[in-house]
Amino acid sequence: MHLDPLSTTLAALADPTRRAILAKLSDGERSVTELAAPFAMSLPAVSKHLKVLEKAKLIERGRQAQWRPCKLAPEPLKDVSSWLDQYRRHWEERLDRLEQYLKDIQQ
Amino acid sequence: MHLDPLSTTLAALADPTRRAILAKLSDGERSVTELAAPFAMSLPAVSKHLKVLEKAKLIERGRQAQWRPCKLAPEPLKDVSSWLDQYRRHWEERLDRLEQYLKDIQQ
Repeated sequence: MHLDPLSTTLAALADPTRRAILAKLSDGERSVTELAAPFAMSLPAVSKHLKVLEKAKLIERGRQAQWRPCKLAPEPLKDVSSWLDQYRRHWEERLDRLEQYLKDIQQ
Repeated sequence: MHLDPLSTTLAALADPTRRAILAKLSDGERSVTELAAPFAMSLPAVSKHLKVLEKAKLIERGRQAQWRPCKLAPEPLKDVSSWLDQYRRHWEERLDRLEQYLKDIQQ
């Protein structure tokens, strides 16, 4: 299935293990072995998740032969954030209404 | 497959037709027929997308027998935005570095 870039990003993020990998990379580069450590998961299973993240351009991998460090690539996350901006007023209006309601019942 | 709420939201959003439906609902309530109109798509196909959005709590549907208007429910989008916040500094740092680089080469 060929997806548009935003759909590819969102599909890659729709997995708790892949989001946990990104959270770990948020602190800096990691090897595949380091990334696999906290998960009860085989290296091939982690590699599969990394491939999905790499295809979605959410991570970049070094080219060293032995150690191919993974690095967070934040641009697609920024694109998701930009897409979400058009809906911001909707949830903010809801929060404003809730706040007003709470004020009203307190009086 | 049973997904956590954030994964369910992201998976529902990973489709251009479903995002286009949400964009249309951003302007107000719509009937299924109104939502189907701009897409070269059958009503059952649109209904299937609406079910995915409803399951992800991204839309709510009225209970009128004939006309069941669809309405945007923005809370899950807010949760995606909150999750993204932890990565904001990453893309902002990248933009700052790019800006600095452009300044440097202009001198």
